[in-house]
Amino acid sequence: MTARIFNFSAGPAIIPESVLEEAKENLLSLGSTGIGIMEHSHRGKAFLAVYEQAVARCREIAGISNDYEVLFLQGGASLQFSMVPMNFLAAGQTADYLITGVWSEKAREEAQRFGTVHEACSSKDKNFTYIPQELKPGSSPVYTHFTSNNTIFGTQFRTEPTPAAGSFLVCDASSDIFSRPIDVSKYGIIYGGAQKNLGPSGVTLVIIRKDLIERGQKELPTMLQYRTHTKNESMYNTPPTFGIFMMNLVFGWILKQGGLAAMAAKNEAKAKVLYDYLDQSRLFKGTAQADSRSLMNVTFVTGNEAIDQQFISEATKAGFDGLKGHRSVGGMRASIYNAFPQEGVVELVKFMRDFEAR
Amino acid sequence: MTARIFNFSAGPAIIPESVLEEAKENLLSLGSTGIGIMEHSHRGKAFLAVYEQAVARCREIAGISNDYEVLFLQGGASLQFSMVPMNFLAAGQTADYLITGVWSEKAREEAQRFGTVHEACSSKDKNFTYIPQELKPGSSPVYTHFTSNNTIFGTQFRTEPTPAAGSFLVCDASSDIFSRPIDVSKYGIIYGGAQKNLGPSGVTLVIIRKDLIERGQKELPTMLQYRTHTKNESMYNTPPTFGIFMMNLVFGWILKQGGLAAMAAKNEAKAKVLYDYLDQSRLFKGTAQADSRSLMNVTFVTGNEAIDQQFISEATKAGFDGLKGHRSVGGMRASIYNAFPQEGVVELVKFMRDFEAR
Repeated sequence: MTARIFNFSAGPAIIPESVLEEAKENLLSLGSTGIGIMEHSHRGKAFLAVYEQAVARCREIAGISNDYEVLFLQGGASLQFSMVPMNFLAAGQTADYLITGVWSEKAREEAQRFGTVHEACSSKDKNFTYIPQELKPGSSPVYTHFTSNNTIFGTQFRTEPTPAAGSFLVCDASSDIFSRPIDVSKYGIIYGGAQKNLGPSGVTLVIIRKDLIERGQKELPTMLQYRTHTKNESMYNTPPTFGIFMMNLVFGWILKQGGLAAMAAKNEAKAKVLYDYLDQSRLFKGTAQADSRSLMNVTFVTGNEAIDQQFISEATKAGFDGLKGHRSVGGMRASIYNAFPQEGVVELVKFMRDFEAR
Repeated sequence: MTARIFNFSAGPAIIPESVLEEAKENLLSLGSTGIGIMEHSHRGKAFLAVYEQAVARCREIAGISNDYEVLFLQGGASLQFSMVPMNFLAAGQTADYLITGVWSEKAREEAQRFGTVHEACSSKDKNFTYIPQELKPGSSPVYTHFTSNNTIFGTQFRTEPTPAAGSFLVCDASSDIFSRPIDVSKYGIIYGGAQKNLGPSGVTLVIIRKDLIERGQKELPTMLQYRTHTKNESMYNTPPTFGIFMMNLVFGWILKQGGLAAMAAKNEAKAKVLYDYLDQSRLFKGTAQADSRSLMNVTFVTGNEAIDQQFISEATKAGFDGLKGHRSVGGMRASIYNAFPQEGVVELVKFMRDFEAR
């Protein structure tokens, strides 16, 4: 087999090798069933056991109480950008949106089709290089939406913001979900595409407070009502069974690592290696404000586009893949999600030091 | 490894073993990239090559001209039930729906939220055991929607119906797509979940005539407009990359088998073994009318529920899995999609003969 290389991709992203090995073993026969994981009916016993374990592990990892439903949907965060306001924001009502990057802007854009959107804060004035500390809530917002981690700009909320009184908190946690402990009870809805911390693309984790479900609009397409999916345990239609299987394996891996506290410690240690180096480098410079730095996506530049290009090109040849910054901002980005090994950041810093010396 | 058994599941369903082996080889490293197929960025060269090959193979298999776009979306046929009318059926306009089973009823139900639905035919009078031969078109329908194969009732259109003049044809082909030659030029839109003939669940193939795209409503959530996906080559958001990879492998397998004409010949031969036996059995009886029989899902009963149960239970023990009919109709159903081997139906008929003799 080809040696695996350091994959800094922002998503789809690295998956723990042990999880991939486990997936491999079950491709032609899930356990001893004689039928591969992808070939099992979603209504059969074998897949239902996978699904139930995935829900149970998810609840265990994040301490999710019975006041919440755990759903596995399709369409990614991008479809949730619409489903949330479609269900909960009626014409004439207001929702607060915290604007900290491209993804929160996209979420706001979809919400504007349904009701009034109030910008409770924005860091656009400094090209989204920081997380605003103060919110100016709108008038009686139904909910408050934020993006916990901004992959493109390398910023991350330290903790969840406090929504306006009477408003429930909605979080697009696609790029930092389960990277650190989370107090689910503070949220109304948490959603995230799986392709960064939870598995392959094509499955979306949605954690939703049960009392909200029936408050959702009723005159919506069946697939776009949360109640459809909660009533049918994510199986109103055929769910992405392989994605759920993979997520279940990743959940198992997180538990084996020691859960979210252990994940957080590892992620802090990894990010520290990179940020410590950036803080003393004369060539490379982190782009996010120190108090807003993301532990998932470390963004940096040399200040010279040609040198950035040269660095990315040499790094790629040396086996550090996916370091190119997002198309919209350029520079470099090292995405170091849960599954990314400490060794990889240590090696990258060595390489950066050498490059700087040259 | 555990021996693989005969998997008659209606979907997710059997996948060619050679395809699963190929998937296995690429889980930890796609080719020599050192990064597994699920871990590659959807914007990277390695995945783009997979995507482009999938589109090209799809076009080759079905002879799809440049007048059509090929999309890989999420949400299954169930989301297409809404996306089609959302985009093309405005209030006050009419669409024709051919009602041949539960799935066409579900499609109609979603369309009714947006405009007027005319029932151009229905076989509900005989519990959907046949495909109506005559259509009574509505008044200037925008489009004509049908379900080419009815998994639950074991019926299938022999060929596509002729839509009313000025109306374009829309087909939910989830359960028989690429099982036989198709004249795509007769259709406006063909859609299908992958989990029967094309790969794992979680990816939806949509073939749409280009001139229709801009006719779609503009005030829809971004993810629910076809133009969003055609403009971005299915990558407006992160697509289900592994599902597309699998579909590409299945497309390769279909081409290697000799394409759709060869698939049709194999599928006819397989179904014939079962129907020939059913036609002379004194115990088992096919439930679909002879002229409407599906080559994909063969539905049958003994006429005695207890014996049906006994048969399913004994068959399962003997290594014939997934023969239980859909919850809504009971009886037995042998789903024998493209990847199901001839050997499996021969063995099943032997088993049925023995059971009948006992």
